[in-house]
Amino acid sequence: MEEELKALISRIAPPDEKAMAAARKRQDMLAKPPGSLGKLEDISIRLAGVTGHVKNKIERKRVIVLCADNGVEVENLSSSPRSVTAAQAVNMTKGVTGMSAIAKYFGDEVVVADLGIADAYDCPAVLNRRIAPGTKNLRTEPAMTRGETVRAILTGAELAKDAARDGMDVVGVGEMGICNTTTSAAVLVCLTGLSVEDVTGRGCGIDEEAFARKKRVIAEALALHRPDRNDPVDVLSKVGGLDLAAMCGVFLGAAANRVPAVIDGFISVVAALCAARLCPDAAGAMFPSHASFEIGYQAAARELGLKPYLALDMRLGEGSGCPIAFEVMAAACAAMNGMATFGEAEIDDSYLDDIRGKDCFTV
Amino acid sequence: MEEELKALISRIAPPDEKAMAAARKRQDMLAKPPGSLGKLEDISIRLAGVTGHVKNKIERKRVIVLCADNGVEVENLSSSPRSVTAAQAVNMTKGVTGMSAIAKYFGDEVVVADLGIADAYDCPAVLNRRIAPGTKNLRTEPAMTRGETVRAILTGAELAKDAARDGMDVVGVGEMGICNTTTSAAVLVCLTGLSVEDVTGRGCGIDEEAFARKKRVIAEALALHRPDRNDPVDVLSKVGGLDLAAMCGVFLGAAANRVPAVIDGFISVVAALCAARLCPDAAGAMFPSHASFEIGYQAAARELGLKPYLALDMRLGEGSGCPIAFEVMAAACAAMNGMATFGEAEIDDSYLDDIRGKDCFTV
Repeated sequence: MEEELKALISRIAPPDEKAMAAARKRQDMLAKPPGSLGKLEDISIRLAGVTGHVKNKIERKRVIVLCADNGVEVENLSSSPRSVTAAQAVNMTKGVTGMSAIAKYFGDEVVVADLGIADAYDCPAVLNRRIAPGTKNLRTEPAMTRGETVRAILTGAELAKDAARDGMDVVGVGEMGICNTTTSAAVLVCLTGLSVEDVTGRGCGIDEEAFARKKRVIAEALALHRPDRNDPVDVLSKVGGLDLAAMCGVFLGAAANRVPAVIDGFISVVAALCAARLCPDAAGAMFPSHASFEIGYQAAARELGLKPYLALDMRLGEGSGCPIAFEVMAAACAAMNGMATFGEAEIDDSYLDDIRGKDCFTV
Repeated sequence: MEEELKALISRIAPPDEKAMAAARKRQDMLAKPPGSLGKLEDISIRLAGVTGHVKNKIERKRVIVLCADNGVEVENLSSSPRSVTAAQAVNMTKGVTGMSAIAKYFGDEVVVADLGIADAYDCPAVLNRRIAPGTKNLRTEPAMTRGETVRAILTGAELAKDAARDGMDVVGVGEMGICNTTTSAAVLVCLTGLSVEDVTGRGCGIDEEAFARKKRVIAEALALHRPDRNDPVDVLSKVGGLDLAAMCGVFLGAAANRVPAVIDGFISVVAALCAARLCPDAAGAMFPSHASFEIGYQAAARELGLKPYLALDMRLGEGSGCPIAFEVMAAACAAMNGMATFGEAEIDDSYLDDIRGKDCFTV
């Protein structure tokens, strides 16, 4: 099993530098002040690095939602009961949750996979990828075995491979799992060395007492398990979750199949960081979406060197930032593919010689 | 003429508080943690205030681009020659500039209007709304007469009315006019009392010497004309431009016709601020798009109480942020219109009673 994970990682290549250089060159030829499209230019260059092509499109889009329950839920750390995981997984297949309503509007596919939902439900549209009926309570025992963790990662990678096979131009990585801001904060503390205080937020909303308890549980779990911060699989298995591990796998699988993968909010960015720690080259295929309201998001995004495109104060999860980010990326492609060069625009750009290469664009 | 402007302003009503309250109520019934869709919720509530309806759509979209030259161009304050104004106005009708390529991709209409382009060009697709062949050099004389300024405002308002007549769900407000970051900075200093240093940036990119000259010219113009900061028409006529005045008019006309109007970058936000100073209720119909890289943007947005949705480090102008913001607003509508309520989602939301109204969502 660990061999399969190693094989997956070995298939991930670094970004295509040649294609990126060609994309950068084309951006400089387009009729606009150099750099004036900001992150839209970065997006087009990074897309070239993933696909190997200068011109790309974001038309076939899929949000992959990894759902699982977390045993730590018994510690009463969320305002929402466990039953919400199953209910919303089902609702996502109907297009009536926040993410799925937006995805439906934009014509995006939504794939919902059950990695370990604890409660029973009846909905064949949710893919059965169940590894365990939720994780154990990480306050008192490891959330998962190492084997379960690797299986969850490989399952996520398989879902990314399916997306590549189905011709997707991009995937988004979302989740559903009550208490997964707790597991994500615990994993982020391990990976960054930041304090529990620095990365733990209120998730969907909890009162002062539950918030204090949440931080205490994370601190106790870390003290008990002492995960090896240089081994993301160890970290995920001890204080993570099936959703987090599978999301990490989607990021790895997307990179291995050269499909750009969009990060949603806090849980998604922590999963992305796990993937980047397992394989730094995987980060080349990752694209941010929105700056989550959840406090730990920024720390994880900084570690990845990614700056989000959207400032929407969202903290819903599900992958809700992904469908909107897809449109931002589509806009970047539209500019790259549709803009005239200076020559085509019949503008003599020699006046730019005075300022090109000089520090003329900073404040 | 001034009477017509007064009549326009008198037609602008405050946001529909009843519709906003109903929209807020529906947001609280949707199956999600309260407030978790952040600014998407705000957008849906503010749209209700503009249209009077709880459910809205952003399907028919138009970017209105006001083009004009600025006499201050002779002071050599931009890296781009004056000829770029005419060239890009024409290119915008072909869908090959930054904004228009993106607009075309998303199926948005683009209306390009010439308020006073100095150079000759041959392109019937550019609407002839010429008031003067560019403005005067504001360093030595008022940019426009008061009459020209009012005419430009009314012309912009007429373009917004056309959009309403044509059934547009939203308009975006863009511009093309070499040196209009200079005029915008001068206007913003007048309206806010901020210093020239605080609000003047490098526009499309200029070297240290031209940057110093730009700030000196603005300071000299303000000292010479001493515009009346309580009279936005006086400010626009002395140190503004035909593009700025017409954009201000689009914002007023959009509000008068209850059509949401999207602000692009620095020039657009200064025009929006002029409109809000002429008629505070007009601000209810304004929606931000991206946080422009240009330094003065934030000050103007703060004055309007608006926080942009997109963080893309763009500084292109043309209205390039608008087509992307339209999609963000469409996403807000999709969530509002497509999400299930707690009842429909078969989730008992009584657990939220514990946290509703408490301060459980801050960090």
